[in-house]
Amino acid sequence: MANPTAAMLVIGDEILSGRTRDANMHYLACELAKHGIDLREVRVVSDDPDAITGAVRALSAAYDHLFTSGGIGPTHDDITAENVARAFDRPIDVREDARAVLAAHYERAGQELNAARLRMARIPEGASLIDNPISAAPGFTLENVHVMAGVPTIFEAMVASVLPTLTGGAPLVSVSRRIFRGEGDIAGPLGELAERYADLSIGSYPFQQDGVFGAQIVIRGHDGAQVEAALIELDAAFAG
Amino acid sequence: MANPTAAMLVIGDEILSGRTRDANMHYLACELAKHGIDLREVRVVSDDPDAITGAVRALSAAYDHLFTSGGIGPTHDDITAENVARAFDRPIDVREDARAVLAAHYERAGQELNAARLRMARIPEGASLIDNPISAAPGFTLENVHVMAGVPTIFEAMVASVLPTLTGGAPLVSVSRRIFRGEGDIAGPLGELAERYADLSIGSYPFQQDGVFGAQIVIRGHDGAQVEAALIELDAAFAG
Repeated sequence: MANPTAAMLVIGDEILSGRTRDANMHYLACELAKHGIDLREVRVVSDDPDAITGAVRALSAAYDHLFTSGGIGPTHDDITAENVARAFDRPIDVREDARAVLAAHYERAGQELNAARLRMARIPEGASLIDNPISAAPGFTLENVHVMAGVPTIFEAMVASVLPTLTGGAPLVSVSRRIFRGEGDIAGPLGELAERYADLSIGSYPFQQDGVFGAQIVIRGHDGAQVEAALIELDAAFAG
Repeated sequence: MANPTAAMLVIGDEILSGRTRDANMHYLACELAKHGIDLREVRVVSDDPDAITGAVRALSAAYDHLFTSGGIGPTHDDITAENVARAFDRPIDVREDARAVLAAHYERAGQELNAARLRMARIPEGASLIDNPISAAPGFTLENVHVMAGVPTIFEAMVASVLPTLTGGAPLVSVSRRIFRGEGDIAGPLGELAERYADLSIGSYPFQQDGVFGAQIVIRGHDGAQVEAALIELDAAFAG
């Protein structure tokens, strides 16, 4: 059976302006690979209602899961929740269980649960909450969209709480070899190998080390035996 | 006059599988901000012909410029050039000026310009070459799409040779303040400020330092005087 597919949507002007270097994409890619969910596409959009709604509609329709990152805090530029709701034509309002989580958190911290913070308790109708063990304000899952915070520590904690609830597939098996020959010298036989193993993804990534050109060949697939067989052929083709 | 807009398309299984952490997005974001071109969207897709063609068509139609990264080497998984050509229904073939650049390079290196390497001289009809001072194999510009290598040093060199040829706008001016109060405590006045300065992007990014919660407020815009005025108001609102 084919693995479930997924896309990621990173939301935030700070990524597109270069202020912030996104870290969540790489983290999610690694976690999904381990869990057997194939990450097929990532998009980064700005804090713009139509950009968010459009991307949520397109990606949630095209893939089994969509994971979003960013825009669920208390400030004016946090507009992800309302636009995910809009993408599915769902009403959104403060929900009692989310409000209770926030109220307990801010009481412990001796801070006021004011109007701004209460925005973080707005949950689209029909969504389920995603636990936030770090700063309380929950994420949520609506249909096949998992809405999570942009702060990396919180994003990672939310991924850790969502992923075990999702049906995975065969984890991605990945093996690699460094070959100290130019990519152009190995491209012919490598292409033939890739053609024979059409179910595998065989990638070639050039490097330069101490003035010598080489290529790291990565063989990826969900069938471990097939990956092993391809690796044996690779070694035979470029031995010595 | 509004600044030109841009999108970026990162092509490669290695990013989506988690094998490689993309570095080019952050670099391009910073360079475009300086040059006064607004980066509005980024997509990452796999080494799949339809995914590449579809994204090139959508993004080149929606924005003034599209910058691509990855997939222009000599191996079987390098399929960007032919699929950018396909997106514009252009033929692609080995072109004499690109072949000459490669021939000179490999002669100097004492390596053979074989069939695999010659693939890197395939240029879509009507494209102009982008210089590659590092490993010779050129990128190209077709219509409003700038096709560049994925290896960061080469990508950066190509950006440096393309950007000066593009009409920029007002560079993005960005100022920031660290405010040692919780985001929820400053969200109200901050939102009012953002409403009054609707032409600016005012972002709030939470941090935690020595156990104290704070927010870095970033004010971005193309009108330096307006950015300064908003900053003065920000300082007045959260002084002390």
